[in-house]
Amino acid sequence: MKINGTPYRSVWVDPEDGWSVRLFDQTRLPWSVDILRLTNWEEAAHAIRSMQVRGAPLIGAVAAYGVALAMRADPASLDQVLPTLNATRPTAINLRWALDRQRAKLHNLPVEARAAAAYAEAAAIADDDAETCRRIGENGLPLLAEIAERKGKVNVLTHCNAGWLATVDWGTALAPIYMAHDAGHDVHVWVDETRPRNQGAALTAFELGAHGVKHTVVADNAGGHLMQHGEVDICIVGTDRVTRQGDVANKIGTYLKALAARDNGIPFWVALPHSTLDWRVRDGIAEIPIEERDGVEVTDLTGRTADGRIETVRVVAEGSPAANPAFDVTPARLVTGLITERGRCEASEAGLRSLYPDVAEQ
Amino acid sequence: MKINGTPYRSVWVDPEDGWSVRLFDQTRLPWSVDILRLTNWEEAAHAIRSMQVRGAPLIGAVAAYGVALAMRADPASLDQVLPTLNATRPTAINLRWALDRQRAKLHNLPVEARAAAAYAEAAAIADDDAETCRRIGENGLPLLAEIAERKGKVNVLTHCNAGWLATVDWGTALAPIYMAHDAGHDVHVWVDETRPRNQGAALTAFELGAHGVKHTVVADNAGGHLMQHGEVDICIVGTDRVTRQGDVANKIGTYLKALAARDNGIPFWVALPHSTLDWRVRDGIAEIPIEERDGVEVTDLTGRTADGRIETVRVVAEGSPAANPAFDVTPARLVTGLITERGRCEASEAGLRSLYPDVAEQ
Repeated sequence: MKINGTPYRSVWVDPEDGWSVRLFDQTRLPWSVDILRLTNWEEAAHAIRSMQVRGAPLIGAVAAYGVALAMRADPASLDQVLPTLNATRPTAINLRWALDRQRAKLHNLPVEARAAAAYAEAAAIADDDAETCRRIGENGLPLLAEIAERKGKVNVLTHCNAGWLATVDWGTALAPIYMAHDAGHDVHVWVDETRPRNQGAALTAFELGAHGVKHTVVADNAGGHLMQHGEVDICIVGTDRVTRQGDVANKIGTYLKALAARDNGIPFWVALPHSTLDWRVRDGIAEIPIEERDGVEVTDLTGRTADGRIETVRVVAEGSPAANPAFDVTPARLVTGLITERGRCEASEAGLRSLYPDVAEQ
Repeated sequence: MKINGTPYRSVWVDPEDGWSVRLFDQTRLPWSVDILRLTNWEEAAHAIRSMQVRGAPLIGAVAAYGVALAMRADPASLDQVLPTLNATRPTAINLRWALDRQRAKLHNLPVEARAAAAYAEAAAIADDDAETCRRIGENGLPLLAEIAERKGKVNVLTHCNAGWLATVDWGTALAPIYMAHDAGHDVHVWVDETRPRNQGAALTAFELGAHGVKHTVVADNAGGHLMQHGEVDICIVGTDRVTRQGDVANKIGTYLKALAARDNGIPFWVALPHSTLDWRVRDGIAEIPIEERDGVEVTDLTGRTADGRIETVRVVAEGSPAANPAFDVTPARLVTGLITERGRCEASEAGLRSLYPDVAEQ
């Protein structure tokens, strides 16, 4: 997608600069568009761990490029590198998926062939993801178009950032929104600010603004009220992991919006690529470990002062501790359906089997 | 209640300083305990409008003292002052209630008697509120004591600040918590930070910490996850207005927590004084006007830097607008019950009639 008219992906390689890997420092967005240059796999691990990159698909692509950087430096290090990269974030299934794909590709190759193969596989993962997201957009577009044609406009609510900055291009939840906007529909997006890391306020608002999509940022608390008063036609969110029975792990607070959507008869859709499916898990609430992040993300916020300085301020009373579960699980019963690169389906094992018989048989 | 061992109320009069009115600047808490000195009714109106005081009961008491300040300056100004004070905040029913009480007391008095009568009536409103909250605490205490005795501890979730800083003393939702703590029960409170104004992170955390009650601040998004995992035994919130059928207007986001409590079989109680009842309204969602506050409260946050400066930072991407509905309505069907100064009841017309036959007949 574009920033100020220039097309970008969220991760790319510069072959003329020692095959270094480039990406946006998303902890600096939206205040500053800083492009990072990764020259070794430890920097890739750091970028994931410190959330300079975030979003399940992008994390997978960056981890794959991390393997490529490692193979370039020491092609015998594969078995040492993979577990460390895998441990950088505990929840995202794409991370493991991308590393498994690299392992399968590289494991039986002679060491001298591994670097080129690892770069090629990382590029394939990135290209596949961009195409996957484009198809998610195509498959979600009719949901928005139907409302826009009926009502003359469509109000969408989304949580966190499941846009192109969270993937390689297009995004997941935002892909149908970009397509509906580009098709000329009158689209407006309610953007949950998404505390504590404010990915909605910072990244989704930035993305939508850069692309020219109408949007309004709201506190995470506001969505229920908006739904009670007819201000939301449809919810679309991304996900970090979808279980065999259709439970959805996503950014903390997603479950609350799904409850409100159900209570107000508003469709609640989840957009996902195949890499987000975790067929080994059934009951998301019981089985998915939820990352508990540092409470400082709740107590302290970073933003820009009126005179342009980036400052971090504490907003919680001195001496009071904070807890910070990063994800929650929305049970399948609250999900209207799933939007995937293969089409739409019910959030259930039967629904997933109908689109992914190949995955289901694994 | 106490701050560093010194007992305070949230509003009081200094007869030796020209009968000026004193209160805490709650926009400065928790970083700085600044006591404001109001010498005229316009300052009282400003304190309410700018949210230097907030919380429905405290707003009522300060408005009543605003009338007293006006009567001291110009006892003929009653009919000019009341509408302006009434317009300082649109949602809080206590504001109108306290002003109606002053009007009834003063309207037929000769002008020379009005100042003393207005101070006496404001003091009576403040004393009544402190006693009312103490009784709310007594009536809510058994709910917490039963859990604490059964489980050895009790985890309470609350939203916004319905503590003594929102009333004259004790608080509403926090009164049972203070009493349970003082009675020796092992109480822990999950404090919703309560975006966008962070009254939970700033004020509830400050209050509980000052009184020695165990607590943990969480993002508003976290409550559903905590409830799914058995970390919440009971929710208690305050309210700005309760309708005849038991619908509850309270800080934006309350409705989402009530939905999650219902979905997880967790009791959801609302604490209120009689002054919060609005018998003229039945359907809270359809009939209660919701204050839309300035979007800057969403886009910009104020806190303290590591080196002690108070800074305001923007957290929303430049150029993105924000909406800021300040309250939502939780329908009575999601409310386990009401805790009042006269006892507990069902959130319904029948329940309210059982405790308030006098109000119901008005």
